Amino acid sequence: MNKVQPKTLSGFMELLPNEQVLFNQMQDKIRASYEKFGFLPIDTPVIEASEVLLAKAGGETEKQLYNFTKGDSNLTLRFDLTVPLAKYVAEYYNEITFPFRRYQIGKVYRGERAQRGRFREFYQCDIDIIGDGKLNIINDAEIPAVMYETFKSLGLENFSIHINNRKILNGLFEAADVKEKSVDIMRTIDKIEKIGKETVIAIFKDDYKMTENSINKIVEFIEISGTTDEKIEKLQSLNIDNELYLKGVEELKEVVKHIRLFNVPEDAFEIDLSIARGLDYYTGTVYETFLNDYKSIGSICSGGRYNDLAGYYTDKELPGVGMSIGLTRLFFILNDIGLIKTDKKSISDVLIISMVEDLSKSIEVANQLRASNINTEIYFDDKKIKAKFKYADKLKIPYVIVIGEDEIKSGLLTIKDMNEGTQEQMSIEKVIEKLNK
Amino acid sequence: MNKVQPKTLSGFMELLPNEQVLFNQMQDKIRASYEKFGFLPIDTPVIEASEVLLAKAGGETEKQLYNFTKGDSNLTLRFDLTVPLAKYVAEYYNEITFPFRRYQIGKVYRGERAQRGRFREFYQCDIDIIGDGKLNIINDAEIPAVMYETFKSLGLENFSIHINNRKILNGLFEAADVKEKSVDIMRTIDKIEKIGKETVIAIFKDDYKMTENSINKIVEFIEISGTTDEKIEKLQSLNIDNELYLKGVEELKEVVKHIRLFNVPEDAFEIDLSIARGLDYYTGTVYETFLNDYKSIGSICSGGRYNDLAGYYTDKELPGVGMSIGLTRLFFILNDIGLIKTDKKSISDVLIISMVEDLSKSIEVANQLRASNINTEIYFDDKKIKAKFKYADKLKIPYVIVIGEDEIKSGLLTIKDMNEGTQEQMSIEKVIEKLNK
Repeated sequence: MNKVQPKTLSGFMELLPNEQVLFNQMQDKIRASYEKFGFLPIDTPVIEASEVLLAKAGGETEKQLYNFTKGDSNLTLRFDLTVPLAKYVAEYYNEITFPFRRYQIGKVYRGERAQRGRFREFYQCDIDIIGDGKLNIINDAEIPAVMYETFKSLGLENFSIHINNRKILNGLFEAADVKEKSVDIMRTIDKIEKIGKETVIAIFKDDYKMTENSINKIVEFIEISGTTDEKIEKLQSLNIDNELYLKGVEELKEVVKHIRLFNVPEDAFEIDLSIARGLDYYTGTVYETFLNDYKSIGSICSGGRYNDLAGYYTDKELPGVGMSIGLTRLFFILNDIGLIKTDKKSISDVLIISMVEDLSKSIEVANQLRASNINTEIYFDDKKIKAKFKYADKLKIPYVIVIGEDEIKSGLLTIKDMNEGTQEQMSIEKVIEKLNK
Repeated sequence: MNKVQPKTLSGFMELLPNEQVLFNQMQDKIRASYEKFGFLPIDTPVIEASEVLLAKAGGETEKQLYNFTKGDSNLTLRFDLTVPLAKYVAEYYNEITFPFRRYQIGKVYRGERAQRGRFREFYQCDIDIIGDGKLNIINDAEIPAVMYETFKSLGLENFSIHINNRKILNGLFEAADVKEKSVDIMRTIDKIEKIGKETVIAIFKDDYKMTENSINKIVEFIEISGTTDEKIEKLQSLNIDNELYLKGVEELKEVVKHIRLFNVPEDAFEIDLSIARGLDYYTGTVYETFLNDYKSIGSICSGGRYNDLAGYYTDKELPGVGMSIGLTRLFFILNDIGLIKTDKKSISDVLIISMVEDLSKSIEVANQLRASNINTEIYFDDKKIKAKFKYADKLKIPYVIVIGEDEIKSGLLTIKDMNEGTQEQMSIEKVIEKLNK
């Protein structure tokens, strides 16, 4: 028989079980953190009608789409979880209770050029809070609290949530009389970390023909530094008499105040006036999150406030605030730099190895352990004892229980700690106590 | 602006949050049951190269495929989790530790005719145990133990796991000299519940031209009844001198013996000699599972033993045994007949409602509850108290904590039990104790 080569498509992450266990634990922790803040799960289809999914899309995105026809239908695989959320909220508007706090964890598809660390199928883990007409600014402070909880639960220590407010930037541009160039200017400011201040000023002058006064105002703004409170003070003392600007500063101040109330420590967040994000989508608070020791990776969790979630589906005003973690890429990066922290490396807590042919006692012990919620596996195959232990070792199962004639007679079990290399004899009750600790 | 109608494709299940919570709990329980038996997770792509995914397929399945091209690639969405498993095991054969016990829970795609209760995108929850060359028969007994654990954890009571062995049927056909017609005969036997015994005999005689002796042997076999032990006894005393038949009876006996050792109660499983399943795939033990009060639904969990998992990818002999639950359909059915049992109807354990504008105290209490792993939500919007309680009610949140001037002064919190309608005052420590109970 001719064999077909079993091959996974490039750009599609497929893990061996030991790594999948770690991936799933990360996903579980993200989900638990989202649920701790009361976000509700939704699960939308991977496939949507193209006219629905692409109601707003265009440009760059279109090229990357997985798009096809089936029968009369033009279908597209979802490329993010935001458009499906907009569809969902517009579709079930009358049945949803607002403010609608939802999370969704699922795969999305983008046919990007395959390269190391880039994936065509990847998990996004999104939370959003959608208001019906309006949405309290405190929600903008709770999102960073969720980010903090989430990354702490993943065992990350040295990360920083960068916060800005788009109103400040937009107001500043109005005040500096360069509003019509704001998109270009923001794009340039966005690159300041990469290209440096001098180049930014040169672009302002030569490309955008900005006046010196305008440039000074913006540079003065960009150069604001200091502690979080100093930054807010400087923003207030810049004497920019623009309503939008002042509103933005007020919002930022309110967000910072409440982030602190949520017990997010001072070193885990900062005001970063250089981040702009999503040029036409975000309208208020914006977030990016960096691993301080690995800034070159870019933001590992981003989001912000928007005025209008679903304008292309409905007339209802649906403001929201949210954030997204690209889990597949994050896992890849953390795995690469050795930052994956987990409490459990295996699914099974214990492997039972029998030294006798009759497996009755092994099964009886497994039944008792499983009834106590201990993940238990029995090695059934007729192999040498060494091979059985090797199996536990390869699967990183932390404990092995050996059952032979002696154990059956005495009723005591021999339990081996695979990490310590030690072994003890104890009753089944003691084993349960030990493994449930 | 012209609005696009927000619409989900027909045949794609999309739930409101309250139902999604129940769905996810079912999925969690299935996963926990699988992990309790030490099955390892894998997660394969939804999209595969068509030549890989369709290495074996043909006939009926092909019509239902979601198939498309992107660039030079011919791609197909997976239609089950078995072919991806075969690919996975063949692809990573050298890195996998055997016996390979894996579970996979994920969406699969079949473009079936849309009708009530039929879905084009649905979750399958599969477990399989794959041996390298051989696989102990006790594994065939552990699969029903996992089924039992899983359905019990879902709160189902009155279900029955039907068990048969394909060797018995095949051996019987050899002994009755009708081997070359076995496919047709099995297909006919498979329908006996629907069309009745007389029609089956008529088909045997008229359509398949079977001798009276052959028909008698098969009918005598089909009519075997009684307790599990009586059935095994009758199978042994039928005096069928055929190696395959005897091997099948021996295996069935061994499986039954170990199912009992696994503490699966007598009324939760039965030998059912009429089930045949998957004509060319299964080679030994086969399973189907029925809700006794809703037999017309058909099997809610099926599977069996096969000799050759991945013959179209590799020369390695990879026998296995497994089963699959179609979760989306099962959820739909159980929801329909009101059989969904859950411990928790909401994500949040408690909603905090503030009677004062300053939310500091509310946030402080939320921080403490969340630190104790209590899912906690704060109602931020400036609404009337009645609207806030209605929110808790709609989301089925079981407790509400009210924080007003009195609570801030006294330090005691007012907690209302939304199901009982009662309320108490207590310290935050007592609240944590109460909610963690």
